[in-house]
Amino acid sequence: MTHRIWNFQAGPAMLPTEVMEEAAKDFCDYKGAGMSLMEMSHRDKTFQGILDEASLHLRRLLEIPENYGVVFFPGGASLQFSCVPLNWLGEEEFADFSLTGVWATKALEEALEFNPLCQSVFLGKNSKFTEIPSLTDNDLHPKAKYLHITSNNTIYGTRYSKFPDVSVPLVADMTSELLSRPVPWNKFQVVFAGAQKNIGPSGLTVVIYNKDLLPKKSRKIPKLMDYRLMEENGSLYNTPPTFSIYIALLVFRWLERKGGIPWIEKENERKAALLYDFLQECPFFDLPVPKEHRSIMNVVFTTKNGLDEAKLLSELEKNGFSGLKGYRTIGGFRASIYNAMPFEGVQALVDFLRDFTRTRA
Amino acid sequence: MTHRIWNFQAGPAMLPTEVMEEAAKDFCDYKGAGMSLMEMSHRDKTFQGILDEASLHLRRLLEIPENYGVVFFPGGASLQFSCVPLNWLGEEEFADFSLTGVWATKALEEALEFNPLCQSVFLGKNSKFTEIPSLTDNDLHPKAKYLHITSNNTIYGTRYSKFPDVSVPLVADMTSELLSRPVPWNKFQVVFAGAQKNIGPSGLTVVIYNKDLLPKKSRKIPKLMDYRLMEENGSLYNTPPTFSIYIALLVFRWLERKGGIPWIEKENERKAALLYDFLQECPFFDLPVPKEHRSIMNVVFTTKNGLDEAKLLSELEKNGFSGLKGYRTIGGFRASIYNAMPFEGVQALVDFLRDFTRTRA
Repeated sequence: MTHRIWNFQAGPAMLPTEVMEEAAKDFCDYKGAGMSLMEMSHRDKTFQGILDEASLHLRRLLEIPENYGVVFFPGGASLQFSCVPLNWLGEEEFADFSLTGVWATKALEEALEFNPLCQSVFLGKNSKFTEIPSLTDNDLHPKAKYLHITSNNTIYGTRYSKFPDVSVPLVADMTSELLSRPVPWNKFQVVFAGAQKNIGPSGLTVVIYNKDLLPKKSRKIPKLMDYRLMEENGSLYNTPPTFSIYIALLVFRWLERKGGIPWIEKENERKAALLYDFLQECPFFDLPVPKEHRSIMNVVFTTKNGLDEAKLLSELEKNGFSGLKGYRTIGGFRASIYNAMPFEGVQALVDFLRDFTRTRA
Repeated sequence: MTHRIWNFQAGPAMLPTEVMEEAAKDFCDYKGAGMSLMEMSHRDKTFQGILDEASLHLRRLLEIPENYGVVFFPGGASLQFSCVPLNWLGEEEFADFSLTGVWATKALEEALEFNPLCQSVFLGKNSKFTEIPSLTDNDLHPKAKYLHITSNNTIYGTRYSKFPDVSVPLVADMTSELLSRPVPWNKFQVVFAGAQKNIGPSGLTVVIYNKDLLPKKSRKIPKLMDYRLMEENGSLYNTPPTFSIYIALLVFRWLERKGGIPWIEKENERKAALLYDFLQECPFFDLPVPKEHRSIMNVVFTTKNGLDEAKLLSELEKNGFSGLKGYRTIGGFRASIYNAMPFEGVQALVDFLRDFTRTRA
């Protein structure tokens, strides 16, 4: 296989090399079927097997309880910003939102379209989104039906290392961290994640929800956004993104082979610690996020003491480190080190940064 | 390349072999980038180039007028069943629907959820969906805002060989025939097509619409379903299905290389004529659809004079002809011969059917 660059993109993001190699091998001729998986009917038993197995692996990896549904939705997580209120709130009801970044803010905006009483209970912009709140029932509206959080904030490099201890159920956008650590399901009513970070290609969203808590349909919902219909039809209400679900299955299998969530969580902590420790000690870098709120998926940092940001960025690119530019509205650097990024990739980045700053000190 | 089977699936369907080979070559390392296209940011200039070029090719191939928008939506055509009324009808308005099959019927059902005055103007089930109406203004409600048609009916093997001559604009679900023949744009307000027949992998829908006719937003629409927002953001309101758009581009390029719509239309007619002529003459087959309504994408036929359907189906599978079983609710046979199916594939099928019936006559 050709040398692959160290890909630190925020998403669509690096996929495990083993997964790419397996998909490449079967790309034109899926297991001798004489056609690509992409060209196969979604009603074919081969694809049904893939869908069933994908769901099973996900349940096993994340220890999803029996009473939770697992649905593969088309589109991105942004579609869930309207799906969730439409499915979980009556027209007069509302939810609380913890605005720790761009995505939670967009989710609230979208919910307000359908449920105008939704409200924010934490305004991250007051601390430039470097903080994660410790919310309790006192912070919430007593009539709010759920609390919406973005569990990991890709852009600002923050995460809830502890999930809020509140009595309402949580709805969590876990796009940039699902499968990186265990999920304490008893706290969650809905967890959703766009695939393009830890799961597979973009255009697919995994939704996991507590079936016992889902209310009866009480309002107009486009059929493709209706949790009940998608679940009843086993994610086959219409033609799903079959190839993306297949890649997701290969990723789930890869993760299980490697040791599952216990293994990847340790790996992710080890990778993040290596990078954060270096950046903390090196006199040329600043970490805007306080230690306790730091993401282990997206490491955000800036330069200081005269280290030239543009120069470093271009040298990184030239040396095979891709996608390290910070989000367009905040600048600086961001290293996204999702599940697929091996420890050696982070080690290579740290080595490069050490050399680069040493020779320029 | 491994032998590829003759794939007559209705969709997801066969893709051009040249396209599959090119995608396979670049699968793990896109043009030397050191990563797959699937792993690349949608904000990367490489992907932006792909998106722009895909849109350009589509415009050129179909001669889409300047004042028509081209948007790549996530999800399938079924999402458009709610997108179209939400974007094009006010709450009190309604449209007419010509029910020539399952998909038009589903589209009406979905529209009724949001616009309860929508109505059917043709009931295909009276002729077991073998007929296509010649609708005129007299058939339509004078206040209907548009007429919704399914231009080609995958399941029943029918199509509008002439589009309705009416004074309201048409909305057409062209999922199973877009890019197979020219589109007379002046008749159409919206044309949409799920990708999985003539365009690329499932999970992507191409929407082409007259921007001058699009009314101002007048009701609540989930952001990812809002034509205005999707168009303003150049199909990048959120992370789109990047890999599917890339495959679509390869398909568009392939079609242009081959000779575009004039070439493929002739090719499709030639393929369809070969198969229909054989089936018509052979004493063991019946064609339920009258000649003038026959689809050139999906050829539906049944057996007669004691020819054993199950036996034929199993022999076809054994001999490398896949996906010929009729739709689950109607039985019989269906050969889907989309753009990617070469003439020689249809010839091989005819040869096989001729031999099979000769030895059993």
